[in-house]
Amino acid sequence: MYELARRESSTNTVVDVDGVRIGEGFCVIAGPCAIEDELQMETAARGVAAAGADLLRGGAYKPRTSPYSFQGLGDRGVALIAAASRRHRLGAVVEALDAEHVPLLAREVAMLQIGARNMQNFALIKVAARTGRPLLLKRGPAATLDELLFAAEYALLEGNPNVVLCERGVRGFDPHTRNLFDLAGALRLKELTHLPVIVDPSHATGRRSLVPPLVLAAAAAGLDGAILEVHPEPARACCDAEQALDLESFSELMNRLEALRPSKVATAASR
Amino acid sequence: MYELARRESSTNTVVDVDGVRIGEGFCVIAGPCAIEDELQMETAARGVAAAGADLLRGGAYKPRTSPYSFQGLGDRGVALIAAASRRHRLGAVVEALDAEHVPLLAREVAMLQIGARNMQNFALIKVAARTGRPLLLKRGPAATLDELLFAAEYALLEGNPNVVLCERGVRGFDPHTRNLFDLAGALRLKELTHLPVIVDPSHATGRRSLVPPLVLAAAAAGLDGAILEVHPEPARACCDAEQALDLESFSELMNRLEALRPSKVATAASR
Amino acid sequence: MYELARRESSTNTVVDVDGVRIGEGFCVIAGPCAIEDELQMETAARGVAAAGADLLRGGAYKPRTSPYSFQGLGDRGVALIAAASRRHRLGAVVEALDAEHVPLLAREVAMLQIGARNMQNFALIKVAARTGRPLLLKRGPAATLDELLFAAEYALLEGNPNVVLCERGVRGFDPHTRNLFDLAGALRLKELTHLPVIVDPSHATGRRSLVPPLVLAAAAAGLDGAILEVHPEPARACCDAEQALDLESFSELMNRLEALRPSKVATAASR
Amino acid sequence: MYELARRESSTNTVVDVDGVRIGEGFCVIAGPCAIEDELQMETAARGVAAAGADLLRGGAYKPRTSPYSFQGLGDRGVALIAAASRRHRLGAVVEALDAEHVPLLAREVAMLQIGARNMQNFALIKVAARTGRPLLLKRGPAATLDELLFAAEYALLEGNPNVVLCERGVRGFDPHTRNLFDLAGALRLKELTHLPVIVDPSHATGRRSLVPPLVLAAAAAGLDGAILEVHPEPARACCDAEQALDLESFSELMNRLEALRPSKVATAASR
Repeated sequence: MYELARRESSTNTVVDVDGVRIGEGFCVIAGPCAIEDELQMETAARGVAAAGADLLRGGAYKPRTSPYSFQGLGDRGVALIAAASRRHRLGAVVEALDAEHVPLLAREVAMLQIGARNMQNFALIKVAARTGRPLLLKRGPAATLDELLFAAEYALLEGNPNVVLCERGVRGFDPHTRNLFDLAGALRLKELTHLPVIVDPSHATGRRSLVPPLVLAAAAAGLDGAILEVHPEPARACCDAEQALDLESFSELMNRLEALRPSKVATAASR
Repeated sequence: MYELARRESSTNTVVDVDGVRIGEGFCVIAGPCAIEDELQMETAARGVAAAGADLLRGGAYKPRTSPYSFQGLGDRGVALIAAASRRHRLGAVVEALDAEHVPLLAREVAMLQIGARNMQNFALIKVAARTGRPLLLKRGPAATLDELLFAAEYALLEGNPNVVLCERGVRGFDPHTRNLFDLAGALRLKELTHLPVIVDPSHATGRRSLVPPLVLAAAAAGLDGAILEVHPEPARACCDAEQALDLESFSELMNRLEALRPSKVATAASR
Repeated sequence: MYELARRESSTNTVVDVDGVRIGEGFCVIAGPCAIEDELQMETAARGVAAAGADLLRGGAYKPRTSPYSFQGLGDRGVALIAAASRRHRLGAVVEALDAEHVPLLAREVAMLQIGARNMQNFALIKVAARTGRPLLLKRGPAATLDELLFAAEYALLEGNPNVVLCERGVRGFDPHTRNLFDLAGALRLKELTHLPVIVDPSHATGRRSLVPPLVLAAAAAGLDGAILEVHPEPARACCDAEQALDLESFSELMNRLEALRPSKVATAASR
Repeated sequence: MYELARRESSTNTVVDVDGVRIGEGFCVIAGPCAIEDELQMETAARGVAAAGADLLRGGAYKPRTSPYSFQGLGDRGVALIAAASRRHRLGAVVEALDAEHVPLLAREVAMLQIGARNMQNFALIKVAARTGRPLLLKRGPAATLDELLFAAEYALLEGNPNVVLCERGVRGFDPHTRNLFDLAGALRLKELTHLPVIVDPSHATGRRSLVPPLVLAAAAAGLDGAILEVHPEPARACCDAEQALDLESFSELMNRLEALRPSKVATAASR
């Protein structure tokens, strides 16, 4: 059994990421799938900051199914997001694909992401955990909830308690959505563990029109946040163009989320 | 292509079930999985009516995996729910398992349900549709969205436009939940069709603690309603005891749903 | 638990279908997906008989996803396959979609099929079982092995011991095959039950090139037979054209199966 | 598209592993899940060599779901299998979990395995491919065939043409088997690529009784081989005890496979 990840009381772990307390209220992490150039990064960062995002996401090392797809800007991407992060006072979340990415990321960004493809890459999880940086651990598309919690346990055993879990869709059979978003699984996770649980409706569905209602759903259901893809010009995005929100839609979503908040707080209080 | 079920404009179909207009606002259908006896039916009906449910559900003919499980009260169950329905002025929703159940149900209850196991029992769908009664058509656990819409098309082609679709979970791999609740699929359905779409989080998860947050999620996401299992004494339920809410929890959920409503309306308006 | 379907000893049930003993050796059932006209039925029946098939299949009532697809010739199709069956001395296997099809089928054909979509249409299973005719019960695309065995139990409880189970693919996620052929599940079934277990690689894969190797695989693994689609002119088939073998390929497959037989016998003997 | 992995003619790639030519005939790779100690390794190696295995498998670095499970002997395990490999003249196949394992493995063993959990760990694949050693690339439990072929493409692009693909089960829903063995998918792979394709029925099913019939099935269907777990005393195995064959069962399987061979060759010739 996952001794450290297991919930043993009603107390929830709060993970502090550059002052943003994940596990208290509903946290929004937004930004482009891939960091493409300075202008795109800056425009995205300024836009999501203005709309009220809590943290900034952006991919520098991209795990692409095909070796012929854009593989990310690498270390230069890290420099770009780190600069945008400082300018807009938004902690940055960037995925580490390989142990060799970890030192630079630990120095430059607020939170390291372990992607779905690497959920059971325990060597990488351990290296990342040892930095002490908060980790965002995404559920793999065929992973059970217990497998995700055991993966988190690998990180916790390194002495790093700052682990946030993320549901991003499991493999489904319907071609209308890219994956099958398991909201009930994310809620069940909250019963099994004290760690914060957020959702990634962009990757879960691959379809931008479904992202705003699913973020609202996650907030109403009492989850801890969402990470989503926002791009200044989705049609020109280097990857996952179909699932990114533009800045206007993101801003509108943030307003709708705000409108939900009072009732959500009442809701949470009543539990 | 499903010519009749396909969305061609922003106009949504509203299905009138004994005066309850499914497709306008968020509709709640509640009641026991199986009708067990007069007292249980009456207590359940009175309780869900008092808490503000819109319609009353109850199973008279139960499609049970095992022939050794309780198979329902049959016609007597229909009489019990019909009486409770009249007493509490709540339209009743009952599943038809076989063409021979259809005439009695069409006479006694407000809405006929076609269950997930029968989603592609086209003979049954056609017989039920010909009664003109509103139909609640549940998605099968391995059905794609297109297959569900084609099944609805069989009903629509009989000249009955009153079809409500219901997502109740697809077959998943995680043992923590009975099925995998496909909220994103339900939202995608709303894009593909003008028919109302509701959810059944009781069957989707098989776990009562997950039902209230998923109902709130469905409402916040803009779906048209939920059908859920409520039992006066869940621990004594003849079937699916693990997923039924008791009356107090149901009442609390209805209050939380009410608290969500203003922001939900604002949300819907902003679309 | 499924008391009657459960294996309790090493004795296997043999189901006699017009003299063909399913459960002894490897049985081949072949014919068109849908009966289209007299010439097609006759050509198919003559061809599969000449190649050595044991039984003849053909659909008269077709359960089609779309109401706009060809729905089968109905009762006239039954007459055509019954005549071809007599001419070529091959027992016929035809699917019943509805209780009202059962009396005619029980009179005219050797074996009644309950299709995958109706695996949990218990009303239909019971009506079909009461005829005493052998039943071919197909596994639904989301059904567990236990659910299939419970469905068989409904038939066995009617006093009809002549039930053959069929694996025809479960819902998978890879677009290269129509379903996911669960050969290991079919083998596991043989451990759980004394009933014969055959496979349907045509529906399981939807791809004719994969049918012959999968039939050989099923035979080598020790299963009891295969049902497959054979059409005189696959390119002109009214339904499932992609998965039907032509007569020449079917004949070649039967030769390859024959070549496997000695070693298969040796294999079975060694267990 | 996967340019290098894609089949463009009927010519198949043959991968030479210490003189064993994978892609010609049916290759058997056998040995324990985890290398436990010198005696176990030696007994297993001697046994599988005597029974006619072509290559020896054994895990030194174990990717375990739980951090509390046995994690393998590490480098010492590599030394043990390398010694057994030399003594019995059987090339060894060992999984690399991390880039830092690769140099030792490339020096000591005949073939490097990339496990299912790392199928999209492209950094690891590239490092392993650059050694020039033959690679055994296992399909991930949620990977489509195209995703597997793209992963192979990452290796091929490093200039290493010696890639063997392995189907080891995808995530299924039935608790009777650990995974869902996708034999049809493995056959479809052979149509899509010129690379050899083998199967791992031990991990695919998690149940030793199903391993022999599935190996026979794979051979009859024309696949290129199987990798399976064999342990001198399965009941004492450190991991996956339920799926390992003992030496006697393995030897019996090799005899049954031999009996199948003539007809298999005839079969292949007729294609």
